[in-house]
Amino acid sequence: MGIGTLVLLRHGESTWNAKNLFTGWVDVPLSDKGVGEAIRGGELLKEAGVLPDLVHTSLQRRAISTAYYALDAADRHWIPVKRDWRLNERHYGALQGKNKKETLEAFGEEQFMLWRRSYDTPPPPIEADSEFSQAGDPRYAHLGAELPATECLKDVVARLIPYWETEVVPDLKAGRTVLLAAHGNSLRALVKHLDGVSDEAISGLNIPTGIPLRYDLDDDLRPTTPGGQYLDPDAASAAISAVANQGR
Amino acid sequence: MGIGTLVLLRHGESTWNAKNLFTGWVDVPLSDKGVGEAIRGGELLKEAGVLPDLVHTSLQRRAISTAYYALDAADRHWIPVKRDWRLNERHYGALQGKNKKETLEAFGEEQFMLWRRSYDTPPPPIEADSEFSQAGDPRYAHLGAELPATECLKDVVARLIPYWETEVVPDLKAGRTVLLAAHGNSLRALVKHLDGVSDEAISGLNIPTGIPLRYDLDDDLRPTTPGGQYLDPDAASAAISAVANQGR
Repeated sequence: MGIGTLVLLRHGESTWNAKNLFTGWVDVPLSDKGVGEAIRGGELLKEAGVLPDLVHTSLQRRAISTAYYALDAADRHWIPVKRDWRLNERHYGALQGKNKKETLEAFGEEQFMLWRRSYDTPPPPIEADSEFSQAGDPRYAHLGAELPATECLKDVVARLIPYWETEVVPDLKAGRTVLLAAHGNSLRALVKHLDGVSDEAISGLNIPTGIPLRYDLDDDLRPTTPGGQYLDPDAASAAISAVANQGR
Repeated sequence: MGIGTLVLLRHGESTWNAKNLFTGWVDVPLSDKGVGEAIRGGELLKEAGVLPDLVHTSLQRRAISTAYYALDAADRHWIPVKRDWRLNERHYGALQGKNKKETLEAFGEEQFMLWRRSYDTPPPPIEADSEFSQAGDPRYAHLGAELPATECLKDVVARLIPYWETEVVPDLKAGRTVLLAAHGNSLRALVKHLDGVSDEAISGLNIPTGIPLRYDLDDDLRPTTPGGQYLDPDAASAAISAVANQGR
């Protein structure tokens, strides 16, 4: 049996995207627009006949809701579900809950872009008593001292890839279609690994929300089409251009 | 460690409840009212501090959606999920998709009540080529010849209890709080087993929709309070009276 199909789905807009706040591990819900994006993502799966046999999500509401609405729209609501913190968004440290524009003004563009896009420079750690810390959150109690207080993308790669190897790859090797409903940075970390993107080039790679990204893999788990294939390529191109032009 | 807490949650109103059709394994969605019932059920869990550590659902959309909305409202959306056909509603055989009032008029009250409420008389089997059969449904493909074409409550007990023993009891013995989001007849089958209800008496037992039913169990998995405790006892009493008075 050949290697199964991998489908990546970045959650739709959250209420904090709309407010321009750094979110990270803060567990905000989808906005109404985000729910619509998730449903559209599920319709794309159904139209393309890319039908997941099982789904993995992070422990965060915006990815869990995206998986729910997408699979409901694709008539695959009944498939097995796995959830794990290793699929969570990057922890944004002390920036969590802060306004992006105000942070840019306070720290300057160079520092701001370093925190946002450098591969190995995390923001300052969040204080455990911050209202935006996850130190008391029962879903992470089992992590103990492993609970992050901040992360750079390199940290996300380090915690994500062991999960990929042990929990996702075996199902792909069994020929199954696997959906990962996750976040901008956890999906960038995986794409970096799959496509062998360099530490420098990954800073310029963005994954649009709500558009399923299909990866067909060879026997060595290398993408047969580098970068994968979006199920709605025109919408993906437009979204990627919009991000690239932000602030110009 | 003591035995954990079991919580039963019957799905809220579906679109076919509102149309007065026999549903069984036909995979209809919740109505808007049913979504509201699920959210209210989750609020009751949160208010009572009965916080599930994991959830089991059937493979049917109305139970899956009920679990989603209830856990989202209870801030327990992130817990592990298991889904299994053994928690499905009773298969209603050839009655699936038929109007209840027309069926009553066509077959008479005695036959009608026998199909609805006798312990061991199933309705006639559904034809595999019926639009309301699950013969071609991919979620049941693994069942092969075990796929039911009709069921009485005794059949539901026979398929449910092995799942209870192997998949639910171990987590309860580990002290965990387990939510089962399921259906009128799969939950009646479990309550029959837990409370030792006779084949005759179970016909008079109804479980209201959307109100969590809490069971605390002793070391032999016998309920410490027979019949369990509804998290909203007044609403449960009112709903049970309303069912008992139907058709009077």
